[in-house]
Amino acid sequence: MFVTFEGCEGVGKSTQVRLVREYLERTGQAAVYVREPGSTKISEQIRDVIANPENTEMSDITEAMLFAASRAQLVREVIRPALERGELVICDRYIDSSVAYQGYARGMGVEKIKQINAPAIDGLLPDVTIFLDLRPSESWRTLKNSDRMEQESADFHDRVYEGYIAEIATSNGRIVPIKPDFDKKVTCERILEALREKGAIK
Amino acid sequence: MFVTFEGCEGVGKSTQVRLVREYLERTGQAAVYVREPGSTKISEQIRDVIANPENTEMSDITEAMLFAASRAQLVREVIRPALERGELVICDRYIDSSVAYQGYARGMGVEKIKQINAPAIDGLLPDVTIFLDLRPSESWRTLKNSDRMEQESADFHDRVYEGYIAEIATSNGRIVPIKPDFDKKVTCERILEALREKGAIK
Repeated sequence: MFVTFEGCEGVGKSTQVRLVREYLERTGQAAVYVREPGSTKISEQIRDVIANPENTEMSDITEAMLFAASRAQLVREVIRPALERGELVICDRYIDSSVAYQGYARGMGVEKIKQINAPAIDGLLPDVTIFLDLRPSESWRTLKNSDRMEQESADFHDRVYEGYIAEIATSNGRIVPIKPDFDKKVTCERILEALREKGAIK
Repeated sequence: MFVTFEGCEGVGKSTQVRLVREYLERTGQAAVYVREPGSTKISEQIRDVIANPENTEMSDITEAMLFAASRAQLVREVIRPALERGELVICDRYIDSSVAYQGYARGMGVEKIKQINAPAIDGLLPDVTIFLDLRPSESWRTLKNSDRMEQESADFHDRVYEGYIAEIATSNGRIVPIKPDFDKKVTCERILEALREKGAIK
């Protein structure tokens, strides 16, 4: 099965991916772990171009296409081969990030983003998407402001959140919203329970 | 006006762009000169990913999307602003290269390449495209084999040529085939004559 994690910056997504991984390793459940953009040699090179804080003149379309190019490589080199071998794949961010960030927050439109991504994902949607349901203005952490995305305004990040909420409604249950607790272990238990219900883990 | 140059590797295209530039500068005709992929800071970073000979595992879709992303940036940052200022733009390679190399020679299909490129070019096609009409197996020069594209087989480059020929037929006269002469100055005269006929230069 193909599981993705989504959420705004600073809501503890990477921490939760790590905690889920520790649980799966502790209980002897194998999985392939990847993150976007990146996780292949070529995708990491593309990530460097996207994240470079000096690339301030990057057009919205260029950015959306670079995310899609990085995704195209990851799907073909890692995700699809692993799924074909019957393995569990856990990916930190996937197409829903492009829809929320570029489609909604940058105002490029959901349909344009899905159109740009169609050749990249070639029909491969996640079986389950865990969405950490926290509005960034309500999150406990402050952003490092270390890359181009994190330097966006608070308003931008709230629009990302609204985008995710809109996508949940049309996802036919694929995207599962999980309310983060102040205690990250409680949050992790909620995620594990959702993944068990979907049959992704034991 | 927007003028592009197209042709297979090793047929003297860059030399001809240089000779045309020298003529225009000598006769006091201003123009903006760019090449693909590249010619903006971001597009050059993308070019480095595409050309890197170590990126042997790059999928066809990733490659096509990187070319399109580089093009998206060049169109928005340089080409369209220059055209809106009424300037002549001369570009070494553009969408016809993607159609010939990826669409035909890599067998990805012309429609898929045009679909990937549609958001990148946003309707901007050249007014005139000069195609140096020489089959690579008949060209006088040998390739340096210095980047990923030049390392492709002779058969691949002949398929590129066939792709260009197929595109000429559907271009409604936009793509002008020019037979290169062994004397590069004769070739340049033929190009200048074609550009004058199209009203792109004096």
